[in-house]
Amino acid sequence: MRQKKVRITIFPSKEIISVKRGANLLESLLSGNIPIESLCGGKGICGKCLVKVIRGNLSYQKPSSSILTDEQIKDGYRLACLSNVDEDVTLSIPYTKEIKTNKLTTFLFVQEKSLNPSVKKVFLELKEADLKNQISDWELIEKALAKKISLCPSLNGNLGKLREIPFKLRRSNYRSTIVLYENEFVTLEEGDTTNRQYGIAFDLGTTTIAGVLYDCVKGEIVIADAILNPQHSYGVDTISRINYAIQSKKNLNTLHSKIISGINQIINSLCKKAKINSNNVYEVVVTGNTTMTHLFLNLSPLGLSRIPFVPVIKNSVTINSKELGIKINENGKVFVFPNIGGFVGGDTVAMVLTTDMMHSRDFKLAIDIGTNGETVLGNKDRLLACSNAAGPAFEGAQIKFGMRATDGAIESVKIENDDLKVKVIGNIIPQGICGSGLIDVVSTLLKLGIINKSGRILNRKEIPDNVSDKIKKRVIEKQNGNEFVLVFRNQLSRHKKGIRLDTSVNLIKTENIVLTQKDVRELQLAKGAIAAGIKILMKELKVQEDDIQEVFLSGAFGNYINVDSAVTIGLIPRGLKDRVEFIGNSASSGALMALINYENKKRAEEISQFVKYVELGGRADFQNEFANSMHFIM
Amino acid sequence: MRQKKVRITIFPSKEIISVKRGANLLESLLSGNIPIESLCGGKGICGKCLVKVIRGNLSYQKPSSSILTDEQIKDGYRLACLSNVDEDVTLSIPYTKEIKTNKLTTFLFVQEKSLNPSVKKVFLELKEADLKNQISDWELIEKALAKKISLCPSLNGNLGKLREIPFKLRRSNYRSTIVLYENEFVTLEEGDTTNRQYGIAFDLGTTTIAGVLYDCVKGEIVIADAILNPQHSYGVDTISRINYAIQSKKNLNTLHSKIISGINQIINSLCKKAKINSNNVYEVVVTGNTTMTHLFLNLSPLGLSRIPFVPVIKNSVTINSKELGIKINENGKVFVFPNIGGFVGGDTVAMVLTTDMMHSRDFKLAIDIGTNGETVLGNKDRLLACSNAAGPAFEGAQIKFGMRATDGAIESVKIENDDLKVKVIGNIIPQGICGSGLIDVVSTLLKLGIINKSGRILNRKEIPDNVSDKIKKRVIEKQNGNEFVLVFRNQLSRHKKGIRLDTSVNLIKTENIVLTQKDVRELQLAKGAIAAGIKILMKELKVQEDDIQEVFLSGAFGNYINVDSAVTIGLIPRGLKDRVEFIGNSASSGALMALINYENKKRAEEISQFVKYVELGGRADFQNEFANSMHFIM
Repeated sequence: MRQKKVRITIFPSKEIISVKRGANLLESLLSGNIPIESLCGGKGICGKCLVKVIRGNLSYQKPSSSILTDEQIKDGYRLACLSNVDEDVTLSIPYTKEIKTNKLTTFLFVQEKSLNPSVKKVFLELKEADLKNQISDWELIEKALAKKISLCPSLNGNLGKLREIPFKLRRSNYRSTIVLYENEFVTLEEGDTTNRQYGIAFDLGTTTIAGVLYDCVKGEIVIADAILNPQHSYGVDTISRINYAIQSKKNLNTLHSKIISGINQIINSLCKKAKINSNNVYEVVVTGNTTMTHLFLNLSPLGLSRIPFVPVIKNSVTINSKELGIKINENGKVFVFPNIGGFVGGDTVAMVLTTDMMHSRDFKLAIDIGTNGETVLGNKDRLLACSNAAGPAFEGAQIKFGMRATDGAIESVKIENDDLKVKVIGNIIPQGICGSGLIDVVSTLLKLGIINKSGRILNRKEIPDNVSDKIKKRVIEKQNGNEFVLVFRNQLSRHKKGIRLDTSVNLIKTENIVLTQKDVRELQLAKGAIAAGIKILMKELKVQEDDIQEVFLSGAFGNYINVDSAVTIGLIPRGLKDRVEFIGNSASSGALMALINYENKKRAEEISQFVKYVELGGRADFQNEFANSMHFIM
Repeated sequence: MRQKKVRITIFPSKEIISVKRGANLLESLLSGNIPIESLCGGKGICGKCLVKVIRGNLSYQKPSSSILTDEQIKDGYRLACLSNVDEDVTLSIPYTKEIKTNKLTTFLFVQEKSLNPSVKKVFLELKEADLKNQISDWELIEKALAKKISLCPSLNGNLGKLREIPFKLRRSNYRSTIVLYENEFVTLEEGDTTNRQYGIAFDLGTTTIAGVLYDCVKGEIVIADAILNPQHSYGVDTISRINYAIQSKKNLNTLHSKIISGINQIINSLCKKAKINSNNVYEVVVTGNTTMTHLFLNLSPLGLSRIPFVPVIKNSVTINSKELGIKINENGKVFVFPNIGGFVGGDTVAMVLTTDMMHSRDFKLAIDIGTNGETVLGNKDRLLACSNAAGPAFEGAQIKFGMRATDGAIESVKIENDDLKVKVIGNIIPQGICGSGLIDVVSTLLKLGIINKSGRILNRKEIPDNVSDKIKKRVIEKQNGNEFVLVFRNQLSRHKKGIRLDTSVNLIKTENIVLTQKDVRELQLAKGAIAAGIKILMKELKVQEDDIQEVFLSGAFGNYINVDSAVTIGLIPRGLKDRVEFIGNSASSGALMALINYENKKRAEEISQFVKYVELGGRADFQNEFANSMHFIM
């Protein structure tokens, strides 16, 4: 009898998953928690779910030749989304999901100095009840806390927490540590555990989920981690995920559980690396755009799917970790940042919190660049925010060789010896180009006159004479728009010595790394949306470039960006060039601030009420600005 | 192949349960939710789990002949606890669990007139958000409530409630009813549902669970119901259940789930009878002694099992019905009365609330008679309470022919035509004797001189001459204490005409109904404990009988008691005879008051703090009083 199950072995990790014969490969890998990218949702368009067959065969549908060449197919490359598993196979996966975490921590700018988290631990040595003082277990604790810290703890209807008390109190000989969340009783621990208290700040990005583990006793960041948002295979941008989520409750549940499992994966990895027990993590603070926090909370984004784009709730939410299945202490708490309106969510509140724009006399501009870009402009009297669907170009998606800012990504370019030289993250063999690299390349080509104002990659003969032949030769003329070669295939072998063993198998060796005409157009759309948003806010506030004293640039992208290049391509107004300050991942920083000092939660609530949301969608002037902003002005 | 499962068919209900071959019959019936009594916990002692085999055979162990005679065994009577099911059988169950509910409602004395429940419904016609007023769904509701009833609703961390809002709001065309519990948002209902709002008040007695369904719109009781506490098979009194519960978490869970399923059974039956949807029940208020509320809340009674007898919590508790698995509206609330201390629980708080003793200048005495008796004495300056383990005698247990006050129970006796005549509840053939009947019989026999001061049933020749021969003949002299025959076996046939068809099969026809010497001793212990408690409280408060202006008698038992007889047996001090007032089931009444007007919840909390608990267990003077009070003083 033919077996119903077949096995997929992953090389080099040697993970094995067992799946139904005939199953779709992408779905099998995703449900087996094998880290594979997919940006187009399994439509065979993005080419990110590439696998290389090492042993066995896959039945597959041939993708368009712009995605995979015949040679690549001959070499065993397949798209997982277009393949089915009919027999046991061994595969390697070229695009990994891991993001370098050391870089993330470097780019957190946390202003908060005063350690005052919502979670407090109080060690009590209690006097046991007797016939003269026949006091209940709970009252015993209540009175001792009132005496020690003038606080009367509330149970807040969470009775389950009481259940262990009689046992723990007696076992610990009435020497116990009380864990509180503001005035709410969280749990009782036997003995003195006041030296173990952690929290985790999360930024739920459309593309990336980042978590930072914080030691609430020492008052310091322990470690950070980030993964690709596991919802990614259900669409690259918020709009596709909203559309998926509102189709059925099942779909919403799927996206919800994807994000929860991603968060739990980070929690698990952070605790493992830091060698701490997740029971000692009592709080998780979460920021994210409105769509992400809705999906996180399992709230339908129905109202966000159509005019007038309203969320279910604007206020912040404090909820038991158990209710969401977040695997920290079972009585732990989750604080979710409030949002501002429409698609402008808690991550923007966090950015305003980090920059303290709300208390500044000077006008300041803050731009968070991600799949969903948000812009805030104003001062203490008035702050306006808008949302720009920048698309995932800055995070590597929908760019032919696009990838996130991880090992193997071209992060910048320069002209050296009359030729173009690339700088690659991790100093290994280049695999693609990340957002900052993309900006740098386009800026360089603009300066050289290889790309013109309208964004077209010129033919060789149209290129100014002062450009070297070496560089001119990089332009490949094609009917549907030219390409510019960043790395020639034959150059790759020269890099090969330095590469790590475990990435060698992941390399596509058969193709040049190029910037396509379509890539330039994607960048134009992305930078155009952001630039137009800035113009509209300036207009609304009647503010000129000169009035803006400071420009904050936020985002994982912002860590690596070359300001000069950003100005060249028109992402940032030229006049503001010298006022740019990088603030790293301000969403994570803001979340961390709320974790460090609970007063920042109130401030976040104030910001959410104070900042006014400007809806760009319905405005004719935005459409005009957008059209204008897509051009390059040198 | 021999089948592993066998079937038990119940006659006359025709319910069928399928069990493992060889299973214990009592356990099978209990787990199949077949209503069968068992007071001794399956030890073959109480005789309450009697079944009659109609078809098939049971393998069984013979019980002591004082429980079942040879003739009864020949007639097919068996004890379920001593029987195993080896083949398909058809059985009838003599002792049913149903309690007449019409009587319960009659005996609720609810003083509360002002209808002001914690649950409120507000119908809103909302103005949908638009681009000019891009308001979140939740804020839309928040602002409308603030405008209409000046209340800002809280979510209290229960986020799940938000999940349906976007759908319901839009489906109902923004015409919705908001359900609140005090200032907490409970749920949103489509359209105007303000005419449907119910609550249920529960009294969790050691022996009986009673529930009263209340219409919070009309402000009236709809219907009441009561069942035997399903924990009964785990011990008749609180001490046995505590001892069972503290053995393991599994045991505690068992007792907890038993009481929850009993409550759900009542909820289901009340809603069915009243033809209402349980989704429209938003609140359950629960009183009970400390042990019962602990088991209800799944809190270990560990602290109650040993000196100094402390509960886990004394305060009232408000908890989501979902957390306890109570099957009302899924976002409903459960309010549990606070307790006073030791074993004196929420039912006593409810009694004090019902009687308003706390605001009286006069000294008043309140006695709640049940398996666990509680006594409260005092006035507005000082109220003292004590608990007396009266034992289940008043509720029919541990009395040879004892039963609860339901159809077939002898509830009183009188002398007519020189003989004893019994009055039977339901006017059917007598099956046993309930608490009030027991008191009446003993009182009558004391007056006739058949029982002496020490409680001994005299021999025929010791009985005074003026007692008729007919009555003297009822005394059966036995070596280990005499018996007094209440109903002769041969009299039973004369009653037979009037009985209902479905009870005919339930009758044990083979034995006289008697009062045994042991029964009298049980009553002496029970009344002695209560009387001694009263004395101790009087002594503590330095109060004489004359100072006590009013005596409240509470309990299911109290509905039927003959005051004269109660005084004769010494349950109530003779001097207070004319000041006795029956207040029915004051625990249920108090719970209902808290349901009707939420201010009573605060009053309950005040009472719980004000009333001081007097521990009798450790006192020598109580032991003396107890010994004295066991005697009969005529």
